[in-house]
Amino acid sequence: MPEIDLNCDMGEGFGAYKMGDDLTLLEHVTSANIACGFHAGDPGTIARTVQAAVARGVAVGAHPGLPDLQGFGRRVMKVSEGEVYDMVVYQIGAVQAFAAAAGSRLRHVKIHGALYNMAVNDEALSRGICRATHDVDARLMLYALSGSVTERVARELGVPVACEAFADRSYQDDGTLTPRGKPGAMITDVEQSIAQVRRMITEGVVRAQSGKEVRLHADTICVHGDQPGAVDFARRLRATLQADGVRVKAPDFSTTATA
Amino acid sequence: MPEIDLNCDMGEGFGAYKMGDDLTLLEHVTSANIACGFHAGDPGTIARTVQAAVARGVAVGAHPGLPDLQGFGRRVMKVSEGEVYDMVVYQIGAVQAFAAAAGSRLRHVKIHGALYNMAVNDEALSRGICRATHDVDARLMLYALSGSVTERVARELGVPVACEAFADRSYQDDGTLTPRGKPGAMITDVEQSIAQVRRMITEGVVRAQSGKEVRLHADTICVHGDQPGAVDFARRLRATLQADGVRVKAPDFSTTATA
Amino acid sequence: MPEIDLNCDMGEGFGAYKMGDDLTLLEHVTSANIACGFHAGDPGTIARTVQAAVARGVAVGAHPGLPDLQGFGRRVMKVSEGEVYDMVVYQIGAVQAFAAAAGSRLRHVKIHGALYNMAVNDEALSRGICRATHDVDARLMLYALSGSVTERVARELGVPVACEAFADRSYQDDGTLTPRGKPGAMITDVEQSIAQVRRMITEGVVRAQSGKEVRLHADTICVHGDQPGAVDFARRLRATLQADGVRVKAPDFSTTATA
Amino acid sequence: MPEIDLNCDMGEGFGAYKMGDDLTLLEHVTSANIACGFHAGDPGTIARTVQAAVARGVAVGAHPGLPDLQGFGRRVMKVSEGEVYDMVVYQIGAVQAFAAAAGSRLRHVKIHGALYNMAVNDEALSRGICRATHDVDARLMLYALSGSVTERVARELGVPVACEAFADRSYQDDGTLTPRGKPGAMITDVEQSIAQVRRMITEGVVRAQSGKEVRLHADTICVHGDQPGAVDFARRLRATLQADGVRVKAPDFSTTATA
Repeated sequence: MPEIDLNCDMGEGFGAYKMGDDLTLLEHVTSANIACGFHAGDPGTIARTVQAAVARGVAVGAHPGLPDLQGFGRRVMKVSEGEVYDMVVYQIGAVQAFAAAAGSRLRHVKIHGALYNMAVNDEALSRGICRATHDVDARLMLYALSGSVTERVARELGVPVACEAFADRSYQDDGTLTPRGKPGAMITDVEQSIAQVRRMITEGVVRAQSGKEVRLHADTICVHGDQPGAVDFARRLRATLQADGVRVKAPDFSTTATA
Repeated sequence: MPEIDLNCDMGEGFGAYKMGDDLTLLEHVTSANIACGFHAGDPGTIARTVQAAVARGVAVGAHPGLPDLQGFGRRVMKVSEGEVYDMVVYQIGAVQAFAAAAGSRLRHVKIHGALYNMAVNDEALSRGICRATHDVDARLMLYALSGSVTERVARELGVPVACEAFADRSYQDDGTLTPRGKPGAMITDVEQSIAQVRRMITEGVVRAQSGKEVRLHADTICVHGDQPGAVDFARRLRATLQADGVRVKAPDFSTTATA
Repeated sequence: MPEIDLNCDMGEGFGAYKMGDDLTLLEHVTSANIACGFHAGDPGTIARTVQAAVARGVAVGAHPGLPDLQGFGRRVMKVSEGEVYDMVVYQIGAVQAFAAAAGSRLRHVKIHGALYNMAVNDEALSRGICRATHDVDARLMLYALSGSVTERVARELGVPVACEAFADRSYQDDGTLTPRGKPGAMITDVEQSIAQVRRMITEGVVRAQSGKEVRLHADTICVHGDQPGAVDFARRLRATLQADGVRVKAPDFSTTATA
Repeated sequence: MPEIDLNCDMGEGFGAYKMGDDLTLLEHVTSANIACGFHAGDPGTIARTVQAAVARGVAVGAHPGLPDLQGFGRRVMKVSEGEVYDMVVYQIGAVQAFAAAAGSRLRHVKIHGALYNMAVNDEALSRGICRATHDVDARLMLYALSGSVTERVARELGVPVACEAFADRSYQDDGTLTPRGKPGAMITDVEQSIAQVRRMITEGVVRAQSGKEVRLHADTICVHGDQPGAVDFARRLRATLQADGVRVKAPDFSTTATA
């Protein structure tokens, strides 16, 4: 029976500012990537989001980003491997403490925004991310873009990895995402998004923009929570997959680290 | 053989800004309270300070403060018990992760600046601090002002406590510190500071400003690192105490929590 | 023909975070108090809000707050007269530059949140605010709570003042606002709010909670923009006042300062 | 009689953090570029620095940087022309208000760190900077790297420009600075630095690393204040130039803008 995880970024408010409909989305996803206070999130928001995820049995993860609240972590910044290591350790630790305080434990790490994209093709930044994840807790699983340099580096360093794929993004012939801004980068049709995910899971294939069929492994699907229709999309995707006989659940948590 | 801990606030730089002579002070103290990024400190500074403390066998602690970098956490802010709980959990977690990444572990928590002083007489704020410390890791020891409400609340909640006393501050008849700003609040004479500490340790007594002798228990002495002569003072204090037959060491780390 | 200004806090988003329906509210108010980046607001948000206000002929003002984005400037902080002076000069300057860049000019200053309330009864903080306003541009008008220490200090220092009154807050026998949190502090009934404003303007009187009639002078009425029904309330208030023969307009801008 | 301005970045502390020996440097330079609160500086630091510059007759300028206090504005960030425009307007305004409050006026703008370097070869970023400077006050002079795209764009948009050259940096054959990190980028020998400046002023020439003589116009020389020996270097440079018959003074402030 095939398995898939549905992950969603959460806790991305800040103080008086709200973002996303976290409580409703938590009914439909199996992993929550919780903002850590750098690109979004503050201690109170993290606390409440962790507690809500734990209460619903959703896996709690950290969602570290660049230190750029004003730019929501979406602006590329030139940072070194060492700076990335330090900022990821810090942010994982913050959310990990809330998970412990809620009687649970941190299970995974997913990087946010510009830093995620910068690392996709960058050996040094990927190494900073992977080493930080490993050094805080060698059992933590890293959610990394399927086929990316980050995935490869994680495997080399023995960091448990879940391969992430996207429902609402189109792919190129080499298995990478069509860059945002290029025509057809975003898939706005819900049926098409769901169909893409189904093929990824059942066949391990995605049809690239060119029409070429590309092999792709998906352990977890990213569900964007900050877009109109996000809740409805998550609900339909989950229902469809379950009707297909897919088991929707968070990745198993390794009790023993691989490195 | 009497024992005493010497603790010092550290890692209080930020980015390009330096503060204190941490590396030298680490040669003389036994506990390092490391700023967590709110009143001071950034991921890189925390990382380097934790690594330096671990390398010298100095106990690593978190030093959480109010979210006021511009005011260095020294400005009173009206915050609720819940806000304090959340900000302390967050900050402990951040430093805890660096301790783990350095192959060590976090051992204690000491609150910084205005928040420390606000909690001394405040039941709710003390509860927020103690609950946060306990909930992240029930074995963490809280360094609290000897005789304060914070100390009492910690004992009630089963949080391990080390009673903190001050070498360079004068005391009042009720065992509390003379408020800064009042005449004679600061002890600037090094001999007098050292004499005060010796009596605290060997007799459990401090002479208040009025001349009255007041009972006071000290497990740890605060050594201020941001003042001229700090390194010299720390060295002389430690040498004097060791010559007295006092064992200068960090408090034992409870392997089993008391609550 | 009586005149009244309707003022509203605006530009209180930050980066990706939105707050309030500024563009719609700008159709109904005559003064915009624009957040300056400390409790809310960022350069892009300020720029767009100033431009929108200028385009609609709404008077552009600065809305300085405490440096506490996480607490939205609503948490009391202990700050000195000098600190307040500096933070108010800074924030006025920032918005003033956008007003100039938009081909207009800054006309007024209204303090935000906790700092506004702290100054109401505090001579030193009021002095810091008034001196800052005067020193940046002696023609700037300060919107101050009618009957407050801030109003008195402004008059003593020759700072042009507009007396502010509230539609949705109840008053006490001494003409001050019933503190939030006390029963009946907020007036939630729209008819009652509008009636209160009409009497303020036409009779210079407000009925306190006790039933006592209290004299009160109002030059400007605060319309809260961050509450449900804000736009509808602003529209109805303005229409009612205009039907009463009240001229709804921003205070005249003194071409010559009074001090 | 040749003229030259000596400019120095100042007010780059933050809260409790100090940087540079501003008061001493103000005795030797003629233009102060004052940090505006984004990469460094806070309202109190700006206030005191502006007052000290005004008291010594040193020209007051704004020194806007990227919103990255942790990285001191030295990390490249991907920002758009619009974002740059907004952040520069904001920061100019803040310092301008302190200049007005000190009974003086803002005279120039010099961009800081990574943003300065990014704009050197970037038309859009230079346009954002120049438009912002012009729109706040068309008389403000922009200090721009001699021969840079920024200088050219400023001239095209009618922004008054002072061409900046560096005493302690070596040049390449095309008149641009040898990038930091490359061998020989920094000139550490004081005599060589002074000699380089003398030729720039008297002959309008700099000898590039290759030995080639390159034409270069200098209106203002950057004196770095955050390096050991900065004060001594500034004093000697000024004394040498004055002995050469060079008039050391800030650029004339245009009473009428050129655009």
